Amino acid sequence: MTAPATLPPAGPTPASAVQAVLVPSAPMPTDSTEVKGYDFNNGVDYSALLASYFRTGYQATSVGQAVEEINRMIKWRLSDEPIADDETEEYRDPEARRKIKCKIFLGYTSNLISSGLREVIRYLVEHSMVDCIVASAGGIEEDLIKCLGPTYIGSFSLPGANLRKQGLNRIGNLLVPNDNYCKFEDWVMPILDAMLEEQKRDGVVWTPSKVVRRLGREIGDTESVYYWAWKNNIPVYCPALTDGSLGDMIYFHSYKNPGLIIDIAGDIRAVNNEAVFAKKTGMIILGGGVVKHHICNANLMRNGADYAVYINTGQEFDGSDAGARPDEAVSWGKIRMDAKPVKVYADATVVFPLIVAETFAKHGVKRVADGATD
Amino acid sequence: MTAPATLPPAGPTPASAVQAVLVPSAPMPTDSTEVKGYDFNNGVDYSALLASYFRTGYQATSVGQAVEEINRMIKWRLSDEPIADDETEEYRDPEARRKIKCKIFLGYTSNLISSGLREVIRYLVEHSMVDCIVASAGGIEEDLIKCLGPTYIGSFSLPGANLRKQGLNRIGNLLVPNDNYCKFEDWVMPILDAMLEEQKRDGVVWTPSKVVRRLGREIGDTESVYYWAWKNNIPVYCPALTDGSLGDMIYFHSYKNPGLIIDIAGDIRAVNNEAVFAKKTGMIILGGGVVKHHICNANLMRNGADYAVYINTGQEFDGSDAGARPDEAVSWGKIRMDAKPVKVYADATVVFPLIVAETFAKHGVKRVADGATD
Amino acid sequence: MTAPATLPPAGPTPASAVQAVLVPSAPMPTDSTEVKGYDFNNGVDYSALLASYFRTGYQATSVGQAVEEINRMIKWRLSDEPIADDETEEYRDPEARRKIKCKIFLGYTSNLISSGLREVIRYLVEHSMVDCIVASAGGIEEDLIKCLGPTYIGSFSLPGANLRKQGLNRIGNLLVPNDNYCKFEDWVMPILDAMLEEQKRDGVVWTPSKVVRRLGREIGDTESVYYWAWKNNIPVYCPALTDGSLGDMIYFHSYKNPGLIIDIAGDIRAVNNEAVFAKKTGMIILGGGVVKHHICNANLMRNGADYAVYINTGQEFDGSDAGARPDEAVSWGKIRMDAKPVKVYADATVVFPLIVAETFAKHGVKRVADGATD
Amino acid sequence: MTAPATLPPAGPTPASAVQAVLVPSAPMPTDSTEVKGYDFNNGVDYSALLASYFRTGYQATSVGQAVEEINRMIKWRLSDEPIADDETEEYRDPEARRKIKCKIFLGYTSNLISSGLREVIRYLVEHSMVDCIVASAGGIEEDLIKCLGPTYIGSFSLPGANLRKQGLNRIGNLLVPNDNYCKFEDWVMPILDAMLEEQKRDGVVWTPSKVVRRLGREIGDTESVYYWAWKNNIPVYCPALTDGSLGDMIYFHSYKNPGLIIDIAGDIRAVNNEAVFAKKTGMIILGGGVVKHHICNANLMRNGADYAVYINTGQEFDGSDAGARPDEAVSWGKIRMDAKPVKVYADATVVFPLIVAETFAKHGVKRVADGATD
Repeated sequence: MTAPATLPPAGPTPASAVQAVLVPSAPMPTDSTEVKGYDFNNGVDYSALLASYFRTGYQATSVGQAVEEINRMIKWRLSDEPIADDETEEYRDPEARRKIKCKIFLGYTSNLISSGLREVIRYLVEHSMVDCIVASAGGIEEDLIKCLGPTYIGSFSLPGANLRKQGLNRIGNLLVPNDNYCKFEDWVMPILDAMLEEQKRDGVVWTPSKVVRRLGREIGDTESVYYWAWKNNIPVYCPALTDGSLGDMIYFHSYKNPGLIIDIAGDIRAVNNEAVFAKKTGMIILGGGVVKHHICNANLMRNGADYAVYINTGQEFDGSDAGARPDEAVSWGKIRMDAKPVKVYADATVVFPLIVAETFAKHGVKRVADGATD
Repeated sequence: MTAPATLPPAGPTPASAVQAVLVPSAPMPTDSTEVKGYDFNNGVDYSALLASYFRTGYQATSVGQAVEEINRMIKWRLSDEPIADDETEEYRDPEARRKIKCKIFLGYTSNLISSGLREVIRYLVEHSMVDCIVASAGGIEEDLIKCLGPTYIGSFSLPGANLRKQGLNRIGNLLVPNDNYCKFEDWVMPILDAMLEEQKRDGVVWTPSKVVRRLGREIGDTESVYYWAWKNNIPVYCPALTDGSLGDMIYFHSYKNPGLIIDIAGDIRAVNNEAVFAKKTGMIILGGGVVKHHICNANLMRNGADYAVYINTGQEFDGSDAGARPDEAVSWGKIRMDAKPVKVYADATVVFPLIVAETFAKHGVKRVADGATD
Repeated sequence: MTAPATLPPAGPTPASAVQAVLVPSAPMPTDSTEVKGYDFNNGVDYSALLASYFRTGYQATSVGQAVEEINRMIKWRLSDEPIADDETEEYRDPEARRKIKCKIFLGYTSNLISSGLREVIRYLVEHSMVDCIVASAGGIEEDLIKCLGPTYIGSFSLPGANLRKQGLNRIGNLLVPNDNYCKFEDWVMPILDAMLEEQKRDGVVWTPSKVVRRLGREIGDTESVYYWAWKNNIPVYCPALTDGSLGDMIYFHSYKNPGLIIDIAGDIRAVNNEAVFAKKTGMIILGGGVVKHHICNANLMRNGADYAVYINTGQEFDGSDAGARPDEAVSWGKIRMDAKPVKVYADATVVFPLIVAETFAKHGVKRVADGATD
Repeated sequence: MTAPATLPPAGPTPASAVQAVLVPSAPMPTDSTEVKGYDFNNGVDYSALLASYFRTGYQATSVGQAVEEINRMIKWRLSDEPIADDETEEYRDPEARRKIKCKIFLGYTSNLISSGLREVIRYLVEHSMVDCIVASAGGIEEDLIKCLGPTYIGSFSLPGANLRKQGLNRIGNLLVPNDNYCKFEDWVMPILDAMLEEQKRDGVVWTPSKVVRRLGREIGDTESVYYWAWKNNIPVYCPALTDGSLGDMIYFHSYKNPGLIIDIAGDIRAVNNEAVFAKKTGMIILGGGVVKHHICNANLMRNGADYAVYINTGQEFDGSDAGARPDEAVSWGKIRMDAKPVKVYADATVVFPLIVAETFAKHGVKRVADGATD
């Protein structure tokens, strides 16, 4: 090889480049957190591993922040705060104040009840760790249907026409045999008959939350989220209750035994009052759509939630409410201006079990009830 | 520069690599479409540019496929198909068959009515180019509120606390002054009073679709989507009608003048029957959540829609219904097994105006009514 | 139906709710833009339609902003700015200043050359509308290979194993017959031989940009982007030139005829100097990865680009450079602090043709050369 | 309340609806996996929790599949397979066959070295658990720079102009003081001088992999990934090595002391041969861009990798290589037709530590070396 024909010339480095590249930096605040991941040379210590997430960066840090935010929800008691000048007598008693907790709203979409998150959610409801639920229609019925028949692991790429021929319904990489919905029809039709009878006889005005409460009582299965919601008097709101299999059944029922009315006006009063009369509120919202908007909108009624954790994969660029960052909700008064809301960009099946493990489940039933998180 | 210390040795190329890299290919079918983009040397001819999208690849191709799918919806007449053996007398008459069109369901989320797509949607409804609408709550009220005050262009990064202090609500990169919602209260409260009076006096059972119809009549503004929906008898379904500003007003109204009932059971019968009694159906769904699921679910009642175009930014990996590909709906019987559904992965504000331009608007009002697309 | 058993009580609406919902708003600035979409009652006038994008919201607005930003790149002349105190003699002459234009960097990933955007990019290069290109390896070779055989429209869901058996390579919804790569081998191998000969004989130190220039000259096809880049002396940088089919050929060549050296150190000096010695720079970057980072990094050498348009589908939440918003580049000094950079969240195949139509192509070859955009 | 004015009529339910909704299903295969999430009533047992991910659905299932796929990589030995007819003598000896392992390629983008995943990756390299690395430029230099100064946790929304004024560079929600890059300059310049001297004196043809090896030796810090890569003779490929801070330094160096050549042709031969001469290969690829394509392309040289795990947030709809599913790589011969590749749609910071915990780290250094995973 001969010498290069054209060696670049030596000379002064362009000054603008040096200045731009070698800008000096201001000192970091002394309480800054250094990025440092978990060192597996210390063995697989999951608690230490998850504790390292906060200082790992990107969404690992967001998971760490979500854990902190939920622990703040668990820990808060009215007694932590000074007595407001206009406070009513009822809430001036120190003992009473120590018992007033943050009201935690939990929202989730249908697909999460289809997934194994159903068991995680059931744990939270079973132990009254959350106070108010908003779900989509599938988020109700899929829990009940799972008491009648299982959902299976499948794959995202199974061709739809083949599945339809086999009567297998795909939800992402899950499969639900259509027979499960046939079983659901058998189970729910007599209940709809009874509800209509009570409407006619007793003047009951059914609302989605009353329907869910009734179904939870009827299912009578400790595997069910809504069994426990009924048992523990945790209200469940679902304004679009007819948008799914239960809607199919109400449709059929409207021919077999017409007349059932399900009123959503009553429930908007109820869900808004959940927020209005709470001293402190927190929102844990898995997924987007109605469940996200509905919880946030109720919290507008009290000028914003105090705590918020969103877990979803939506993006803000298309202006969707599903993808909106918490800071958009601040502009509407749905989250308080001084809150530290957290959004985790992730499929909830991956991160929510970890977050529950490091919050509600870590402290345990008794201690969460007492507000202890240390 | 001296010679390299270590020249790589010459020798036979590894045979496995050559074989793997130089695999021969089967011939492409003779009707295959070659990729070829628009040549701007031909000048800026937008019709030719958009015609080139089909052979441009990725989502440009999907836009081209969506145009074709919607043109199929527009063009179809019952007379295109043989008379079914079990066809009723009514549908055996050739003249009648030439008049039976594909029923087009249009769904969209709230943010699209907040955006300039409102005018595009209003055009479709004004000219009865779609037959049945499903919207989210904001998709209703934001149209009416725009008749009372404008929405403005803002930016995605405006800090929420500053905006809240100014009473400016952010939706992506849009801003809605909160005063607009105050004006909405003034406008809607007397209507709610009247509706309650009619409920008490005449036994009207209000459903979301009836409420939307009434509001459309009341707004009396040719800028409004729902004015035209009322005028043209196009039904609008919105099962979660209370999940937004109208819900806030219904909440306030429940204190001022209690008793209004809004029944969703009646509407599930109505929306399902839209699909059941249609000879052919097409779905155009912008966004996800309830609007997507509700239209698909109604079409399950007829064993699937014949045509479908989804436009959204959701992804399937988290098992969300919002992100599910059309092929998931095929597995449920919500889209026919032999359909050619299209999903366009894009913010609808960018692509839907183009698609309307190349379909409904291109052919024009009269020709779309006649099913002409050539 | 009897009267409801439990009518909600009338009474004062919760005051906190009323106050929170009916917050008054500050007046909008008088120059605020009202959201207003295109009215198809005016017919399909594409220029008017695209002009409406700016005030349509979400990514339509971003498309409108990108059009404005690129028009600023086209229009700028050094004569628009006051003469700097330390300006050299050469740049003080008014006539000279009127000729100094903004240097436009164009970057794109491989898939866009596989798509129909190749023709759009070729138009820009053919007419010297951009000044410096950064591409990925496939972004080079796929252009050349298209001169040897076509790419076809396929589908995202064609099973990979079937395709491999047929020798059809899938890129999203495109298909490239593997024979095209065999033809590429036949074409490129003699060129590699000649290049090695020149290295040995003349001491040429090949860099990726020199290789691309040579290949552009050799292909001699007016359909090729790189033919025009060679013809018009537009430099093309591609630091990872070996990461694709050309790399496969260089690998084979290292056995058949060893010794070719391709130096990336020379090119980093060259690409950085493109930025350092420019009076004004603009960046148009389609996609992420090396092409995005490389252009931004070169512009750090001059303390930031003056104009920037990113078009990609990446998100910031995972800390990827691909998904980083322009504001992250501002923190690094890669975009000027006073710039108005734009990111469009979209597949470039959908929006880039529209943006070119409203900028470079709209004004036309002569007028772009003159900096006229009105 | 009076009776409703219009009760829907009773009558037969539309038959088509009943038939469509109540389609019977074929039985599921007896080995189907039922969806079942973790029951926190069993306490927080992380190993059991992560074991439950496989049957939790969506990306939790994908994480479970990734764990299985990587365990297959760890476990495989040539002795597991029958001796090929054309096998060379060297590989016929049973003892030798028991020692031949799957060659594991690990790829990652720059941002992951900036994050706490650097420590996780260092663990894998320190214990020779992976065999060949491909990184982006930042993926090299950020590791070295962390030996000179820390990276900090910041926030995604810190305004860029403020940060630039403070000399703080943002990477997602991380901050790197610009001083760190000044320190890097001080450290690396003498090394570049020495390398140029060796080039001139000894005829060394530097390639990116040789440069990385040298820098790893020089840094001499057990915290560094590349210290261990050097120590353990694990090759590191980085074709675009100049695309970052090291490139800035090489640029400066080209003025101070011109002449350094970094050849990428030599490395394409080297990285391809890593794949060609391996008996079995696995790919673990975090992120997209060059690192993903480069590993896959090398594996094309052997007609496809046997195992593959992708972890990224890219989507296929825009035809990007970054977002392509593994099945696209199958069409190219980059993954074997009979492989069971896994893509996890997630930010790697959240899932990769969990996956390492359940694979490499769970089994431990000695057992991974022995291929034991039970």
